[in-house]
Amino acid sequence: MPEIDFWYSIGSTYSFLTVMRLPDWCRKHDASVRWRPFDVRQVMQAQQNVPFVGKPQKTAYMWRDIERRAAKYGLRARLPAPYPISDLSLANRVALMGMSADWGIGFTRALYRLWFEDGVEAGSTEALTEALHRAGQDPMPVLARADDPSTREALDAETAEAVRQGVFGAPSFVVRDELFWGDDRLDDAFSWARVGHVA
Amino acid sequence: MPEIDFWYSIGSTYSFLTVMRLPDWCRKHDASVRWRPFDVRQVMQAQQNVPFVGKPQKTAYMWRDIERRAAKYGLRARLPAPYPISDLSLANRVALMGMSADWGIGFTRALYRLWFEDGVEAGSTEALTEALHRAGQDPMPVLARADDPSTREALDAETAEAVRQGVFGAPSFVVRDELFWGDDRLDDAFSWARVGHVA
Repeated sequence: MPEIDFWYSIGSTYSFLTVMRLPDWCRKHDASVRWRPFDVRQVMQAQQNVPFVGKPQKTAYMWRDIERRAAKYGLRARLPAPYPISDLSLANRVALMGMSADWGIGFTRALYRLWFEDGVEAGSTEALTEALHRAGQDPMPVLARADDPSTREALDAETAEAVRQGVFGAPSFVVRDELFWGDDRLDDAFSWARVGHVA
Repeated sequence: MPEIDFWYSIGSTYSFLTVMRLPDWCRKHDASVRWRPFDVRQVMQAQQNVPFVGKPQKTAYMWRDIERRAAKYGLRARLPAPYPISDLSLANRVALMGMSADWGIGFTRALYRLWFEDGVEAGSTEALTEALHRAGQDPMPVLARADDPSTREALDAETAEAVRQGVFGAPSFVVRDELFWGDDRLDDAFSWARVGHVA
């Protein structure tokens, strides 16, 4: 079965649902998913895609929808979480570094827990430092390396690849060049990977 | 079980999926749904909610997503359908008139078929006339009455009621003051009606 690319950005609210339920979901479905952090803010600004800022009704609905779905998935959440986050690029650069090693998923999940369970803004130094600790990393050298030009270029390259694959928001799934947008399309993406259509 | 309000607008692309699958879905689930046409364009313009115009990537995805889901539901569709439609208000005023009689659902489904199967723009006189014929109505007196101030006021009142219920897009479902947005939230709405949470 082809692998599913899971494009997400720390800073995306609906990505919380996928980030938290995906490991159990993969075990249950015997599926393999590749976690790919990118900078969704850069993409959405370039495409003039502004889903929530200045839209109070839609924003209120987003939190309520996430609350109901978190309950469905058995996820703890204290909502609304601080939003939007200040520095989206740094958090995703750190996540991308972690994906080249073995701590990227653990870091991402720890950071979402801090953001959605404890109300600590995910772009803050406090949240990044604590999430790195929880992922077994020494924060200071990691955060220093996250500012290297090579790390910035690596995230830019991943973001460009996401755009090349048609990604315009997060979370998204891509399988065999087929794009699925939203946590609620995970089953569609899996069906596409298995049988080539949405069942 | 409390009734589900189905808020839709002729002119909304994703409403196609719900409009076409809802009668079978209701029979299968022994559910009762109240069809409520409103003017989603008026609501979205007031809320500066512009999902597709000027967003080619998101628009391309929307058609592909609808295509995949139409196939899943066994619906015929020739995509992309003409979009956006010219006159959204008139079509929904006619649909609202039909809901006070017994031909509103038949008219709506006939019009979506013309729009999504045959490529006839749903706001056009040609499409409205043909859909009224298929719904067993004499088009000329209906279209004349659709321009009455009382008919305009009736659609404005329904649109105001949708906004009061928190609706910001179409299709939406409301059950016990709980809002669900999108064709893909129909099962969530039904679960809410049955057991008060999203199962």
